[in-house]
Amino acid sequence: MDGGNSAAEESASQLEEEIGRVVEEARQLQESAASHISRSFNEEQTLRQRANSIDSSIRRCRSLLHSVLSRRLIDAKLADKLEDELQRAKCVVSDGDAASFLPTKSQGSFLRMFLGPINVRASRKDVQLKVKEEYNSYRDRTALLFLLFPSALLILRSWLWNGCLPAFPVQLYQAWLLFLYTGLALRENILRANGSDIRPWWIKHHYCAMIMALVSLTWEIKGQPNCAAKQRGVQLFLQWAMMQGVAMLLQNRYQRQRLYTRIALGKAKRMDVVWGETAGVDGQLWLLCPILFILQASLLGFEAYVGLQLLRTAFVRVVTEWQVIFCGFLLVLMAVGNFLNTVQTLLTKSRFKAKMKRVKSKPELD
Amino acid sequence: MDGGNSAAEESASQLEEEIGRVVEEARQLQESAASHISRSFNEEQTLRQRANSIDSSIRRCRSLLHSVLSRRLIDAKLADKLEDELQRAKCVVSDGDAASFLPTKSQGSFLRMFLGPINVRASRKDVQLKVKEEYNSYRDRTALLFLLFPSALLILRSWLWNGCLPAFPVQLYQAWLLFLYTGLALRENILRANGSDIRPWWIKHHYCAMIMALVSLTWEIKGQPNCAAKQRGVQLFLQWAMMQGVAMLLQNRYQRQRLYTRIALGKAKRMDVVWGETAGVDGQLWLLCPILFILQASLLGFEAYVGLQLLRTAFVRVVTEWQVIFCGFLLVLMAVGNFLNTVQTLLTKSRFKAKMKRVKSKPELD
Repeated sequence: MDGGNSAAEESASQLEEEIGRVVEEARQLQESAASHISRSFNEEQTLRQRANSIDSSIRRCRSLLHSVLSRRLIDAKLADKLEDELQRAKCVVSDGDAASFLPTKSQGSFLRMFLGPINVRASRKDVQLKVKEEYNSYRDRTALLFLLFPSALLILRSWLWNGCLPAFPVQLYQAWLLFLYTGLALRENILRANGSDIRPWWIKHHYCAMIMALVSLTWEIKGQPNCAAKQRGVQLFLQWAMMQGVAMLLQNRYQRQRLYTRIALGKAKRMDVVWGETAGVDGQLWLLCPILFILQASLLGFEAYVGLQLLRTAFVRVVTEWQVIFCGFLLVLMAVGNFLNTVQTLLTKSRFKAKMKRVKSKPELD
Repeated sequence: MDGGNSAAEESASQLEEEIGRVVEEARQLQESAASHISRSFNEEQTLRQRANSIDSSIRRCRSLLHSVLSRRLIDAKLADKLEDELQRAKCVVSDGDAASFLPTKSQGSFLRMFLGPINVRASRKDVQLKVKEEYNSYRDRTALLFLLFPSALLILRSWLWNGCLPAFPVQLYQAWLLFLYTGLALRENILRANGSDIRPWWIKHHYCAMIMALVSLTWEIKGQPNCAAKQRGVQLFLQWAMMQGVAMLLQNRYQRQRLYTRIALGKAKRMDVVWGETAGVDGQLWLLCPILFILQASLLGFEAYVGLQLLRTAFVRVVTEWQVIFCGFLLVLMAVGNFLNTVQTLLTKSRFKAKMKRVKSKPELD
């Protein structure tokens, strides 16, 4: 028993010693962690101030340059060179490592509503780019489903279901749409918080699409008798979705290529996205890719057409549910919004281009 | 003209100079930002390694202590003291500034599905605590709505709508439920990623509730004739929701108080949440708050009852939609899951307590 006791005492005291060491280590770790956090917080504050002041300097210089140029106080070639330099400085600040220290756009109430006050901005550039890459590949995947899902429903409708869609697969599709648009809207808000220049209208467009998917879920899919007339709205909607799938696939492929070109030319940041650029940012689109333009225009037209058809069905009183009227109205609204957004972008761009041309050509005329 | 020209040249050269300075500043900022990011990344790596090794040391010491204690090689009082010290070290590491350097739980596929690969873990403790506080206040707000919304529907049903609910307000309520549960599930996943110990079953419970809200949206609210029989399911569901609202309000108030006590005693971390702790973590709940226990038990019972009623309605063939069967089945499943989770927690706790009692009492018997 003596030997056992002393061994026990020894192991107990050893354990006590080790626990004391661990406690001490934990205390030290706490100190290092606290000092690291406060030091890097201070450094980040300084970097933030510097990034801010440089950003505003660039903006001031640019407006000075424009005013000097318009009053013809500077040689056009020199102005071009200086403009290029400012553009490069801007790229360094807003696309390099310093970008994470520029003031964030407010995250918006949509993210706050779903996620609470969590910060979704990544501080490291490679993480931000990973987020963007994932968003693009998500869009590619969904574009394919966007094409396949309604096609399958329409094909099965004529082959298997004798022209009358059963409710369940359509509702499954609507639930998927709701999930998809919620995911897209959340991701786009996250991208925006991470410095992407995605257009606000496209996010709003997805909010509308979310609401429509939600409303369409409550919309009863009526069957026989007179199935074709009752399901006219659903059928139109599916055809529109199919067309949108084709447009999305083409757009994704083309626009990504184009974005890479613009990044290489220094005209775009790496965090910019390609969605909704069909408006023809540089006016080249009209010449370069008429197919895409025709697709976009006919998509817009078809959106309005489906909306008006839904409204007509509701007023002709084959279907009297409020959901039909609401969805029709929303589709027309979305088409009008798309149209206005496209026109606005084109006008801004062409005005800007005309101005630049005039300003640049005048000194030479002198 | 000469004076004007020289002034123009001067302002142009001044501008050129200033732009050169801005470009240089941008370059320097880029360098500082890059070096800051890489330096703090390295420091964080080191801190991460240290936090990891201390965390595993604590775990090793604790299991050693338990084995030494069970073989009666150590004085019970000393063991208590050492256990307390280890607990304090654990608190320092997992609740102090070092906590952000402990390995994260994987963020899970739910967040990935909705948000992509974005990191939702806050590195600063005060931000994490803000997230938790906001989650609690969100729950308080929703608990109130959870009570008011179905109450209003049921009251209006008897006063205004002559015992027959119109479809729109019910669907609005169901859409709100879907939004609410999605928000809760997202927030809880974010809390989990930030180191909270919220129970996985409660998150799963909210996934089930999300699915149910989605399915109930497609469920046609039938009216006259025989409205009471057709809307029996909806009515039961609303009553259950009302009861849940009351339970949530009471739970929130009581549990938050209790969590603060546990934090003060060092038994809980500040990031832990209070949701779903009605299972009676310390066994005191049964004595301290019988009202809450009765509420929880009757809620569970009512959940199962509503589920079975829905299944019965479906089989008696008043309503033949698949949604009714599905919702009934899901409610029964949720009730069973709640029951099993509660029982499991109680068993674990009581076993652990019995063991501790036995271990502690034996040395004194010797």
